Amino acid sequence: MATRRLGIIMNGVTGRMGMNQHLIRSIKAIREQGGVALKNGDRVLPDPILIGRNADKIAALAKAHGVERWGTDVAAALANPDDTVFFDAATTQMRPGLLSQAIAAGKHIYCEKPVSTNLADALDICRQAQARGIKHGVVQDKLFLPGLLKLKMLIDSGFFGRILSVRGEFGYWVFEGDLQPSQRPSWNYRTEDGGGIILDMLCHWRYVLDNLFGAVKSVSCLGATHIPQRWDEQGQAYAATADDAAYATFELDGKGGERVIAQINSSWTTRVRRDDLVTFHVDGTHGSAVAGLQDCRSQARVNTPKPVWNPDVRQSLNFFDSWQAVPEYTLFDNGFKTQWEAFIRHVAEDAPFQWNLLEGAKGVQLVECALQSWRERRWVDVPALSA
Amino acid sequence: MATRRLGIIMNGVTGRMGMNQHLIRSIKAIREQGGVALKNGDRVLPDPILIGRNADKIAALAKAHGVERWGTDVAAALANPDDTVFFDAATTQMRPGLLSQAIAAGKHIYCEKPVSTNLADALDICRQAQARGIKHGVVQDKLFLPGLLKLKMLIDSGFFGRILSVRGEFGYWVFEGDLQPSQRPSWNYRTEDGGGIILDMLCHWRYVLDNLFGAVKSVSCLGATHIPQRWDEQGQAYAATADDAAYATFELDGKGGERVIAQINSSWTTRVRRDDLVTFHVDGTHGSAVAGLQDCRSQARVNTPKPVWNPDVRQSLNFFDSWQAVPEYTLFDNGFKTQWEAFIRHVAEDAPFQWNLLEGAKGVQLVECALQSWRERRWVDVPALSA
Amino acid sequence: MATRRLGIIMNGVTGRMGMNQHLIRSIKAIREQGGVALKNGDRVLPDPILIGRNADKIAALAKAHGVERWGTDVAAALANPDDTVFFDAATTQMRPGLLSQAIAAGKHIYCEKPVSTNLADALDICRQAQARGIKHGVVQDKLFLPGLLKLKMLIDSGFFGRILSVRGEFGYWVFEGDLQPSQRPSWNYRTEDGGGIILDMLCHWRYVLDNLFGAVKSVSCLGATHIPQRWDEQGQAYAATADDAAYATFELDGKGGERVIAQINSSWTTRVRRDDLVTFHVDGTHGSAVAGLQDCRSQARVNTPKPVWNPDVRQSLNFFDSWQAVPEYTLFDNGFKTQWEAFIRHVAEDAPFQWNLLEGAKGVQLVECALQSWRERRWVDVPALSA
Amino acid sequence: MATRRLGIIMNGVTGRMGMNQHLIRSIKAIREQGGVALKNGDRVLPDPILIGRNADKIAALAKAHGVERWGTDVAAALANPDDTVFFDAATTQMRPGLLSQAIAAGKHIYCEKPVSTNLADALDICRQAQARGIKHGVVQDKLFLPGLLKLKMLIDSGFFGRILSVRGEFGYWVFEGDLQPSQRPSWNYRTEDGGGIILDMLCHWRYVLDNLFGAVKSVSCLGATHIPQRWDEQGQAYAATADDAAYATFELDGKGGERVIAQINSSWTTRVRRDDLVTFHVDGTHGSAVAGLQDCRSQARVNTPKPVWNPDVRQSLNFFDSWQAVPEYTLFDNGFKTQWEAFIRHVAEDAPFQWNLLEGAKGVQLVECALQSWRERRWVDVPALSA
Repeated sequence: MATRRLGIIMNGVTGRMGMNQHLIRSIKAIREQGGVALKNGDRVLPDPILIGRNADKIAALAKAHGVERWGTDVAAALANPDDTVFFDAATTQMRPGLLSQAIAAGKHIYCEKPVSTNLADALDICRQAQARGIKHGVVQDKLFLPGLLKLKMLIDSGFFGRILSVRGEFGYWVFEGDLQPSQRPSWNYRTEDGGGIILDMLCHWRYVLDNLFGAVKSVSCLGATHIPQRWDEQGQAYAATADDAAYATFELDGKGGERVIAQINSSWTTRVRRDDLVTFHVDGTHGSAVAGLQDCRSQARVNTPKPVWNPDVRQSLNFFDSWQAVPEYTLFDNGFKTQWEAFIRHVAEDAPFQWNLLEGAKGVQLVECALQSWRERRWVDVPALSA
Repeated sequence: MATRRLGIIMNGVTGRMGMNQHLIRSIKAIREQGGVALKNGDRVLPDPILIGRNADKIAALAKAHGVERWGTDVAAALANPDDTVFFDAATTQMRPGLLSQAIAAGKHIYCEKPVSTNLADALDICRQAQARGIKHGVVQDKLFLPGLLKLKMLIDSGFFGRILSVRGEFGYWVFEGDLQPSQRPSWNYRTEDGGGIILDMLCHWRYVLDNLFGAVKSVSCLGATHIPQRWDEQGQAYAATADDAAYATFELDGKGGERVIAQINSSWTTRVRRDDLVTFHVDGTHGSAVAGLQDCRSQARVNTPKPVWNPDVRQSLNFFDSWQAVPEYTLFDNGFKTQWEAFIRHVAEDAPFQWNLLEGAKGVQLVECALQSWRERRWVDVPALSA
Repeated sequence: MATRRLGIIMNGVTGRMGMNQHLIRSIKAIREQGGVALKNGDRVLPDPILIGRNADKIAALAKAHGVERWGTDVAAALANPDDTVFFDAATTQMRPGLLSQAIAAGKHIYCEKPVSTNLADALDICRQAQARGIKHGVVQDKLFLPGLLKLKMLIDSGFFGRILSVRGEFGYWVFEGDLQPSQRPSWNYRTEDGGGIILDMLCHWRYVLDNLFGAVKSVSCLGATHIPQRWDEQGQAYAATADDAAYATFELDGKGGERVIAQINSSWTTRVRRDDLVTFHVDGTHGSAVAGLQDCRSQARVNTPKPVWNPDVRQSLNFFDSWQAVPEYTLFDNGFKTQWEAFIRHVAEDAPFQWNLLEGAKGVQLVECALQSWRERRWVDVPALSA
Repeated sequence: MATRRLGIIMNGVTGRMGMNQHLIRSIKAIREQGGVALKNGDRVLPDPILIGRNADKIAALAKAHGVERWGTDVAAALANPDDTVFFDAATTQMRPGLLSQAIAAGKHIYCEKPVSTNLADALDICRQAQARGIKHGVVQDKLFLPGLLKLKMLIDSGFFGRILSVRGEFGYWVFEGDLQPSQRPSWNYRTEDGGGIILDMLCHWRYVLDNLFGAVKSVSCLGATHIPQRWDEQGQAYAATADDAAYATFELDGKGGERVIAQINSSWTTRVRRDDLVTFHVDGTHGSAVAGLQDCRSQARVNTPKPVWNPDVRQSLNFFDSWQAVPEYTLFDNGFKTQWEAFIRHVAEDAPFQWNLLEGAKGVQLVECALQSWRERRWVDVPALSA
């Protein structure tokens, strides 16, 4: 039961997501638990080198988390044959170029979503990876949220009977920045800097829908910039040019051949009155469920109340009481870490790994179809994709 | 301070809605309170004659509620010059013909919605009424729900700042009829009998949107028949041919010139996890609110919580706690009765009454546009309407 | 991005307030965070020297908090040209003399309130500072309490509409010292030692009212010595000669030209049944709020309940339920530290700083007007003040 | 044990207060319980005749409550020697004239407050009553509120030690009438119609203060018309000319010779965050209490918590938890009825009755002093009053 080293070049982990989820809660946590166990009993211990543009910052980060190796030169890092995996969590605009370099250097690839800002680039990278024969993966973290894992368990159990429809509500109020400081970076609200909620969120909805309910085959999407002026990190007013809300409907080819309708609103301009920051309400012939980030509540056909519509008296039923929590039937680990472990096994022992660059490209494809739908005011079909 | 009599022909009040809301809670209640008070201090006392096809049934109904006059012959009733108002709550398919007869007889017209099953008929009736110079009105009861009156008070107060968007969720699970008996009549689920949720509900959404938020200017709608087989009142299986769910998005011309997006799901195939059987969630720059049938809850900009998205820990905020009920600031009477009183004042002293046959036709128009949108898979503009 | 040193003479920081708020939570905390960041990226690191009368005490304090420099001789400290700021938190009676010395030595001035025990002294110091051209500031810590910052956010948002009135309740029961030991020093209750609640608190109310609601233009104040005998730190009975409660009403020139009435009770002889030790209840046409030290709760016009006055039955409304908390929309730092950082930027890069000696003098002015009002049993106008 | 009849002329009981409190809950209730028991065991059964201007209205009222006698002519009623008591609850403006007539006719007098709109009239009536030798009384209902009875029990028990101060808060938000309908009659807000909160409420505060805490000896009062425009019963805008808030401070000669300060705010323009619509907070050396309409809560000296003022952390004490309810130690009857029973015993068997026309005149006196204080911006002494 040997322990093998796996050299990983981590680029762009000074940002919030890269640092917290990928460095601290995934790679560092895997190191602290003694690596990833393989089928044969061996363990793989990741050995990261952190790469960033600001030497002071990257050095401090490395020091703070007990990482010995760091640098500012991606090319130099790629030249080291002992590091065989390249991970990128830097900006979307730079991503395709970096991945291309890493593939050329023969590295396995793992990266944040979106793979690129357009489908052509995403497919191009995918083809390069296939041609070079390296292994590749894209982060699809929402699939590993406890709430969605519980929902998947319900689906796998046949609880829903035939699934009819899915209602998704994502979002919350992002402060404009004048009265209350904004809780998200200002670039999110500028198209010219890669902002916009359609680009940000429809990548996620693609893999959530495809994996849980069925392949997305068409989309109708209406975007909006509800708040056209915001205040940035320095308190300066700026024009918010990117879409901050999207009202989308999807048709899916359900896993049993049935037709499923998914209607999902995404918004940074709504005040929350629901169970969680994102909720998926699923209705099926035999039952329904509502999943959030952590929890999932179900209502079976036989437990469905019979409401009476009477405008003269206050409703006597409390519609929150007739749902039953799906219990904590297992310990749910951090989703980013779970996916890292799967990718490491994929690299180390060729374990199956379905969330590859082609899946990543599908997310970008749905973004493009949704934007086209908004522009042309009609339903847009989502063709099958191959690299 | 004299009391005048107003003779009203009431057709089709043996059905649930006609009997409970129009006969018992409106006309009978108005009689018990001594009629409707006019500005000059006079009172108008409605004197109804009930008309129905089944003599036994209509006689029993009349007797049960202290109504002296009843009959089975509409033509005979229309021939009585002492009855000057004709009210219809029978089937939609028969309505245009009956209204046409009544208009020809010079009666004032008041009726349930939809005015007809198609726009051409609705406009035709409207033109007949205008040509004959009679007074006319269509039931728009949802406007008088306490929850929506409270919402309107919020709008009038300027609470929302600029309104951005409206999310509507209507519906509940209508039992298929095999395990649990269905709580709605089977004709609702057969297109050939005038069923369908789009025809039933989009009439309502038209006047709710127009009156509260701004004129509807375009619609994108996707219908579905999620449950294709149901069991009828006799326990017989039948093919449910009508749409039982509709996923619609609307663009509105807001009252202050702003663009408002309304996204409304209507469904008889969803299990309820929300405050009420219908809810409208309104987001504005300065505040948000969620209205149901009776209650309305608001959240001002300054009370908006700052949620933190952290997939690793259960959300610490309860998103239902940060809303404040709009209190019972006045006594809310039955909405059907309120609208009846307004129509009686309209007839008796020419008081303003905005909910006329043209407004009723607008509801039918939106139904047609929504059905066209579904068929053609695109946004459909809703043109201005004139009789 | 250089780091500059700023030498600060801190006098009188052995007292509770000086030690906890100014030394530990402000200067020490600023040092631990690496100083104060300027606009150009430079940082200013305060380098304090602690001055006190008791050498042992001051040496121990310096050692305990990692301060290298201390002394007992103010004049010697002022002679050091490398220390350019003089801060005083010792007794009010000694303050004008010390500030005068420091100004003569060309030091910038920052001090606790009240600036002096009378207006003439306060204005004299102010004029000396202006003549010498040094920078100066006075602590106005209540403005930085989270509860009052939230209240200010409500005001800035326009939540109140037109502000009508403010009710302030400050105070709690200060034990007499016989049964339970007193929780405040005995000099507070002796006029001859600079005690009295009017002198202590009306300085605060002046800047709170001026900054949040509008300039104070007249005052009516009734003082009282409700408890004429107390027991001191040694358990000895003494005559409490100073006022221990003040019932004051103020007229303000509101910021939009409106007239605002503020009624504030201050008392060391009241038992607390309210949200916090100090509360400000603000009523406006469009909403109301009640702010404490940390929290602030609001009630919008549209959420205002309609109470029924019925002496025969217990009130069915709970009047605490109809208020909504203003959330923690940002991280609130220690208020003393925030003001120190602002003063340091004022000294280092001439950043704006509005809470200067003239503002401090206004507090003393209001004390004098209130005492005159009490003596003469009438409203006293508060004239505009200039140095 | 005989039962005697007492003929009572009741004038102006068609108004809300006259009807509910005096007719239904007092006289009718006393009749239903078989009259008022005297010391000798006899019972006195009131036999009212209702007098009002509108014959239909007064006849209907009489019929509804089983009263056989009614009329529209005060003079005729006064001419009947079998009715020996005259009660008036009609408008304040008409009251002195009516009382004068009744006194001239030799009737005993009982009436609502205020006795008149000015002190001269009130004293004049008082002197007429004394000269004629009849018995007289004025309603002072607040003294009989359960909350104030409990407070009086605390005072009588010596619970407070020496009473130091009283804080009163009366009021709530009276809707302007545009968005929400107003819950009070519009004449309350017009000076020309006898409106104004000082005239309405300071009558009450006079007898509450005099009876519970000590004789009022001086007053400082600031009035305001915070809301200058309101909407009346017909939805028409009108100028609100009367004062709608009053901020008053009083000095009292306490019952044990001590000086007591009472500070009372009265307002129709404040949103309520307290225990009840009116609260009196009393602080004494040995304990404190807060009384509302129904409840009273106390905190003894030995139960007084020791709060710590620390602006850095949220207050850990809940200041509502350290109070103890005064229990329902007896059954509290309706206060109006209790006072009626006392007056009937006063008439029937000369039982003591302290709330006479001179006490009523004191209420009007305090109103005048308060208005003078507001006008002259100074404290006004309240001289001793004799008829």
